[in-house]
Amino acid sequence: MSPEPTPDHRLDLQRRQRLGMVEAIWGEHKTADQLARIIRHLQAAGELAFATRVSQEKAAAVQALVPELSIKHHTDARCLVSPELPPTDPRLGRVAVLSGGTSDLPVAREAQLALACHGVAADLVLDVGVAGLQRLLDRLDDLRSADVLIACAGMEGALPTVLGGLLPQPVIGVPVAVGYGVSAGGQAALHGMLASCAPGVTVVNIDNGYGAAMAALRILGLRGAADPDRR
Amino acid sequence: MSPEPTPDHRLDLQRRQRLGMVEAIWGEHKTADQLARIIRHLQAAGELAFATRVSQEKAAAVQALVPELSIKHHTDARCLVSPELPPTDPRLGRVAVLSGGTSDLPVAREAQLALACHGVAADLVLDVGVAGLQRLLDRLDDLRSADVLIACAGMEGALPTVLGGLLPQPVIGVPVAVGYGVSAGGQAALHGMLASCAPGVTVVNIDNGYGAAMAALRILGLRGAADPDRR
Amino acid sequence: MSPEPTPDHRLDLQRRQRLGMVEAIWGEHKTADQLARIIRHLQAAGELAFATRVSQEKAAAVQALVPELSIKHHTDARCLVSPELPPTDPRLGRVAVLSGGTSDLPVAREAQLALACHGVAADLVLDVGVAGLQRLLDRLDDLRSADVLIACAGMEGALPTVLGGLLPQPVIGVPVAVGYGVSAGGQAALHGMLASCAPGVTVVNIDNGYGAAMAALRILGLRGAADPDRR
Amino acid sequence: MSPEPTPDHRLDLQRRQRLGMVEAIWGEHKTADQLARIIRHLQAAGELAFATRVSQEKAAAVQALVPELSIKHHTDARCLVSPELPPTDPRLGRVAVLSGGTSDLPVAREAQLALACHGVAADLVLDVGVAGLQRLLDRLDDLRSADVLIACAGMEGALPTVLGGLLPQPVIGVPVAVGYGVSAGGQAALHGMLASCAPGVTVVNIDNGYGAAMAALRILGLRGAADPDRR
Amino acid sequence: MSPEPTPDHRLDLQRRQRLGMVEAIWGEHKTADQLARIIRHLQAAGELAFATRVSQEKAAAVQALVPELSIKHHTDARCLVSPELPPTDPRLGRVAVLSGGTSDLPVAREAQLALACHGVAADLVLDVGVAGLQRLLDRLDDLRSADVLIACAGMEGALPTVLGGLLPQPVIGVPVAVGYGVSAGGQAALHGMLASCAPGVTVVNIDNGYGAAMAALRILGLRGAADPDRR
Amino acid sequence: MSPEPTPDHRLDLQRRQRLGMVEAIWGEHKTADQLARIIRHLQAAGELAFATRVSQEKAAAVQALVPELSIKHHTDARCLVSPELPPTDPRLGRVAVLSGGTSDLPVAREAQLALACHGVAADLVLDVGVAGLQRLLDRLDDLRSADVLIACAGMEGALPTVLGGLLPQPVIGVPVAVGYGVSAGGQAALHGMLASCAPGVTVVNIDNGYGAAMAALRILGLRGAADPDRR
Amino acid sequence: MSPEPTPDHRLDLQRRQRLGMVEAIWGEHKTADQLARIIRHLQAAGELAFATRVSQEKAAAVQALVPELSIKHHTDARCLVSPELPPTDPRLGRVAVLSGGTSDLPVAREAQLALACHGVAADLVLDVGVAGLQRLLDRLDDLRSADVLIACAGMEGALPTVLGGLLPQPVIGVPVAVGYGVSAGGQAALHGMLASCAPGVTVVNIDNGYGAAMAALRILGLRGAADPDRR
Amino acid sequence: MSPEPTPDHRLDLQRRQRLGMVEAIWGEHKTADQLARIIRHLQAAGELAFATRVSQEKAAAVQALVPELSIKHHTDARCLVSPELPPTDPRLGRVAVLSGGTSDLPVAREAQLALACHGVAADLVLDVGVAGLQRLLDRLDDLRSADVLIACAGMEGALPTVLGGLLPQPVIGVPVAVGYGVSAGGQAALHGMLASCAPGVTVVNIDNGYGAAMAALRILGLRGAADPDRR
Repeated sequence: MSPEPTPDHRLDLQRRQRLGMVEAIWGEHKTADQLARIIRHLQAAGELAFATRVSQEKAAAVQALVPELSIKHHTDARCLVSPELPPTDPRLGRVAVLSGGTSDLPVAREAQLALACHGVAADLVLDVGVAGLQRLLDRLDDLRSADVLIACAGMEGALPTVLGGLLPQPVIGVPVAVGYGVSAGGQAALHGMLASCAPGVTVVNIDNGYGAAMAALRILGLRGAADPDRR
Repeated sequence: MSPEPTPDHRLDLQRRQRLGMVEAIWGEHKTADQLARIIRHLQAAGELAFATRVSQEKAAAVQALVPELSIKHHTDARCLVSPELPPTDPRLGRVAVLSGGTSDLPVAREAQLALACHGVAADLVLDVGVAGLQRLLDRLDDLRSADVLIACAGMEGALPTVLGGLLPQPVIGVPVAVGYGVSAGGQAALHGMLASCAPGVTVVNIDNGYGAAMAALRILGLRGAADPDRR
Repeated sequence: MSPEPTPDHRLDLQRRQRLGMVEAIWGEHKTADQLARIIRHLQAAGELAFATRVSQEKAAAVQALVPELSIKHHTDARCLVSPELPPTDPRLGRVAVLSGGTSDLPVAREAQLALACHGVAADLVLDVGVAGLQRLLDRLDDLRSADVLIACAGMEGALPTVLGGLLPQPVIGVPVAVGYGVSAGGQAALHGMLASCAPGVTVVNIDNGYGAAMAALRILGLRGAADPDRR
Repeated sequence: MSPEPTPDHRLDLQRRQRLGMVEAIWGEHKTADQLARIIRHLQAAGELAFATRVSQEKAAAVQALVPELSIKHHTDARCLVSPELPPTDPRLGRVAVLSGGTSDLPVAREAQLALACHGVAADLVLDVGVAGLQRLLDRLDDLRSADVLIACAGMEGALPTVLGGLLPQPVIGVPVAVGYGVSAGGQAALHGMLASCAPGVTVVNIDNGYGAAMAALRILGLRGAADPDRR
Repeated sequence: MSPEPTPDHRLDLQRRQRLGMVEAIWGEHKTADQLARIIRHLQAAGELAFATRVSQEKAAAVQALVPELSIKHHTDARCLVSPELPPTDPRLGRVAVLSGGTSDLPVAREAQLALACHGVAADLVLDVGVAGLQRLLDRLDDLRSADVLIACAGMEGALPTVLGGLLPQPVIGVPVAVGYGVSAGGQAALHGMLASCAPGVTVVNIDNGYGAAMAALRILGLRGAADPDRR
Repeated sequence: MSPEPTPDHRLDLQRRQRLGMVEAIWGEHKTADQLARIIRHLQAAGELAFATRVSQEKAAAVQALVPELSIKHHTDARCLVSPELPPTDPRLGRVAVLSGGTSDLPVAREAQLALACHGVAADLVLDVGVAGLQRLLDRLDDLRSADVLIACAGMEGALPTVLGGLLPQPVIGVPVAVGYGVSAGGQAALHGMLASCAPGVTVVNIDNGYGAAMAALRILGLRGAADPDRR
Repeated sequence: MSPEPTPDHRLDLQRRQRLGMVEAIWGEHKTADQLARIIRHLQAAGELAFATRVSQEKAAAVQALVPELSIKHHTDARCLVSPELPPTDPRLGRVAVLSGGTSDLPVAREAQLALACHGVAADLVLDVGVAGLQRLLDRLDDLRSADVLIACAGMEGALPTVLGGLLPQPVIGVPVAVGYGVSAGGQAALHGMLASCAPGVTVVNIDNGYGAAMAALRILGLRGAADPDRR
Repeated sequence: MSPEPTPDHRLDLQRRQRLGMVEAIWGEHKTADQLARIIRHLQAAGELAFATRVSQEKAAAVQALVPELSIKHHTDARCLVSPELPPTDPRLGRVAVLSGGTSDLPVAREAQLALACHGVAADLVLDVGVAGLQRLLDRLDDLRSADVLIACAGMEGALPTVLGGLLPQPVIGVPVAVGYGVSAGGQAALHGMLASCAPGVTVVNIDNGYGAAMAALRILGLRGAADPDRR
């Protein structure tokens, strides 16, 4: 006798209440069928569904499986959102998401979108890699008004270090798995950010745009806690 | 002809103004003589001197070289402070520094002391490793009132993950280089924290208590920015 | 003259007698043709055939090559069984197979199926990852009655540690190769489990559900040795 | 003002009740003073103190600090025990601890002593490395009567594989950090054991004799559960 | 102006004279077109062409490009030979090529074929992995008459160690890139062989069946040097 | 509301003026659409477009998107150039690009083409690997007249060492990601070049033919600075 | 009978003639006795002796063994020179040696001294790490007049990248083994420099100040070749 | 009750008969007391004792413990031999042991001495590193008459490759753990040798001079087998 079938997921629906965050679905290793069932389950519980690392092909397959649901694929972020993003609320704070090069775009977009899922607006500041320092220095004044800085970079990953040496806000480094040779897979960028000589730069896992967004959310929550208007 | 002597350090005295942080001196690879000269130089500029990774022996040698200065060695944090810590100001916020085991103490103390250098009070919560989960669960209510959580752990480094799954504040993981075999040097703890399945945990370099403190300071600065009483 | 052909496998048919285990066939690097010949060979010797890491496509090809044999592909475990699973015998003991997330399912299923091949029933307990600790704590009482616990987890792999700190039974950790960045390939989970601060957790190779099942079988055999009714 | 002193350890005194194991003290990174205070604390709670990785020099320093306590240093196991080992009880089961070479002795002894702390007798079977296979084959009959096999090996770590292919009991591999070049630090032995082609071999961290002993204890506890005489 | 075309290979046609070996062509990164041109070039110089790591598809493409040449693809060795293998000469010596499991077959076949290119006969001894030791012990007497032993193994790679502890001939270990987790890519097998506790085992690169064959040829050449009949 | 679209690249158009180099486009992670837009953008600014790591398929797609532009794909260098290469100027100096084997050709060609983009002629010297030393020694006299030597090599990467021990010019090593086992990915070649016992050999990232060319350009610029005819 | 003694070194006295460089003696693994004999041997051949990685204690021992020779220990460079440095010749060119922090000083000094051994003057520019960017930007105009830039940096090693993005000269990065955690041993700095997004930065082995100096010398030789006054 | 003492070694006295080799004692992790007991044990069995990795201090301690035995410490090989080396027999064959630099001497000497223990004469050929190729080329004719070549090299380890490309005999590479940065610990040399593009070079573990000697002995045994005069 073969073993009995078992439901293959169990959602952590108290997460929003406990942490103020929706539970993201890591889409890479899940089938379209699994994703469709999880999204339907979340919808039934009145929760926003946000799935990362979903290719355009898999997204189409999910949409075909649950045509009755509103599911949008954000192609450049490789993410699914359902039913739709909430309106952004400027009182929640402002995040700037920087990237060293064009190839870091999907990770930066994932961070931006994950914040949008929680109503937080984030500006993208692209192509400010340190080999052409002027492009970053030109933007410094703008950046001073952001509450949190998320810096995505592949190759040697020096962007958070330079940024952290120039500005006093929280800087969250996101190593990106672009590059070749020693930078393939994002290890050189990860180690460069962890070894940063700029004080107080923190780091998340390689390509973890979602994680950086949640770290920013934790920080903004704190800011909110001190702001009587937002209670 | 041998090359001419050159002064062997140049301080970044604008750092406090730019970032709101004193420049810490990384003491491990410096001689007592270099440390004494740097401390004297900072004193002359009216800056607090804070040196990490200084053994008791090296500290005594520094004190002997500049007996006219007030220099205190905080033994369990392996740090030198001169001339003395500023008073702590509760309005700056409250940080909790947790550690998984007794062996993580020096790193936790370094974080606590680095915050004290900036007037921020931090509570130590020791020996709350995840193999005896109850010890952590018993402290949850206390921890809810902290603004930032710094979690120091060696071995498999699971403390920030468990913490980040239970509480909504910013969680900064500090991998600690205690352990043996695969955890020697702190790599297993580092990777465990980066791979954390709890959303929004960030990480600093292995043993970098100072870095975690500065990251907390960046976050508290943000909180302060929203707090009119502190301006 | 080209070298003469040589038979390309030699089975270890005494394994069941020596160790009480069937010889599993590692299917990943074998062709459908090789698998079909090995299964036919085992069948002729009166042995159960159990092949791991067989895709649905390769399974269909094997079935087409030996249509006269009863071969079942267990899709979610990625395994072939032929001719059919023996009945389970509750007196052999009870194993619980836990998984941190949905993506660990194939490995957990492989362990469950490998036990079923030896007549041992195993319960799956899914999605009890440590970032939502309550889901695990809710199941503790159930788990107390299992003889052996197999804990499958990717990412940071903290599940066996938390489990081993709460329960006294044998805990076998199976790192799973899901994740990205530092957890890609399962290395972070493997190291986290080996570095576990919970006493007496043991570990098998990454994704080795079969190996964990065989370790459980060795343990249950011991239990059996003490149980006069089973002799 | 410097931060207030905090007690630097908190014991997990419920561990024996929860898991049936004493909490071992990892002595490597602790000072003699810390060890003395922890041992005194455990004694006061009526618990056995067992500290691993304690050099002869540190042991003497501990004994000098608490001369009123009975503390024995087991030199070849590099462990401290206080006040004294309990009598062994043959009904708890029998463990065989094997080692590949003389240099593995301290790890094998640590495992043996950790079992003795729980009343379990363990035989040492030394120098049965696979390069001189006959030495192991000569002992097979003896080994058949052990309940659990702990196999300590450095270099390429093949002992658990050969053992696991010959005998049906639980086999726990302990990689040992002896060797040079690619085997320095025990990594080659660790990977060799994890990659074992013998089914159901499990592994603990490098040099973790204590962990292997606790894994054996978990298994013996299971055996005990099935044995009415022992209740 | 674009740079001028340059011939893209230069053969080392003196290699046979200098070393007594044909120059093997490493086929993996070469196009069918490059292979066809090199084979034609060698043929023109009167040399045997032997190309490793050539898939069946690429082989067909090469054969289509130079239909006038006799080119044979040895599928299980993944090699091309042209125009044809020389007759084997038993006076050149006898090599045994062993493999731990079926998955090691392509590497073992490559070694066997590379020897055949030089007129040396080699026997394949398959599936003698150390987890079922009896299969190897049964073949010991046969193996005593071989001049050189080539042992191919993936997973933990213990075969050369066990072999080298039992027999006095030269033993050349070839780690094979089969396995998963820690043995993926052949690193565990490589390190296991290098760390071997059997004296005098030597090792070649992972999957380098050709290299092991050439090492055997160097040894047999030496044997020949001492044998007046062969001069 | 989904976040607003943002332009996904920002060019560093001052690079030529600042460094005397065109900004190369790293084509590997970019879509044909992104490449087409960047090339059009550069063309509009009067800059040469040079994109590396572009497959023949992607090149055709780019050409189809902007048929009005002259874009040439240099297949063996895997690069796009638009609108066309400038004439080479012998007064700029002469570079020799050497390669150990045929498989290193794409990297060597990339270096040669990158130099051609700046008007510098480079000779290719192929298949001079150190296992057939005579092929290199035969070319020594020719090589003496080059201003800079770029040595591309995979496998063990010994070519720059041997070259740097024989000739006094600047030697730039380019490790190439050809090989298998320990040389897969180019790590063995990289480490071999960095560890070189020949004095003054420098190294660039694995497969970085473009980087080696730019390093040569920096050196030739220096040479030019000393040459009054070229000002 | 024990093997006969053999002279334990053989000097490469043609190196100066072949490459224009003196042969440096790597002092780390040599005994004072070996160093003394080599220096005496070089002196007899009329060559300058330059030994790197010699501690003050070993230097004193060498001086005591050959008191008749003039041997100077440059303490901050950890090098021995005998009999004495040649005069520097400004026509040979000018090198700037930059360092990120005080701890990089010994490596920077080794580079400076190795150049001085060949008559080349080099300026040290210390403490220009990228976390305080202004310190570097302040020195840019000075640096424009150097012929070659050697940039020594530990931690994340971003200095050569920033420098290479701002200035057109040859930039040679020297990773320095200062730091802790992921930057311990200099690996993070090495990888950061190799992965540099600034075009044409080259790298030498970790801590290889001597190697960087020799690379600069090769480049200056080229400059010299174009300078008729120096012929 | 503490566990009973157990003899801490068991010798493999049949090794000479089985393999024709004495069992070497790996001295690094053994105490003087353990070494003395093993040597006495071997002496009693009429066997030669050969212990590697024994410092001068430990050797003196061993000699003091068993003053009645003749024990010689070969300082530059770091080995103990007792009672004395057998006479060398030229009919057994001739081995050449080459080294790249002076720092490789202890490893080369260990190989030479291990051969001397078996009556085989070996010539040392020192300081023939590939950066000064002429020193090696000058010795080629001598080397042609050796039966086996053992090539010891640290740094990038290119010596066996160059040698294997020039000469047809068996070449055994021994990576040596000298160097710094990427070559520290001998990994770069190990990988360089394994990745060698010279056909048929084999490799032993880092610093394993003894292992290379035993591999040579296995080969010479084969040569002997073909030589009727030697039987």
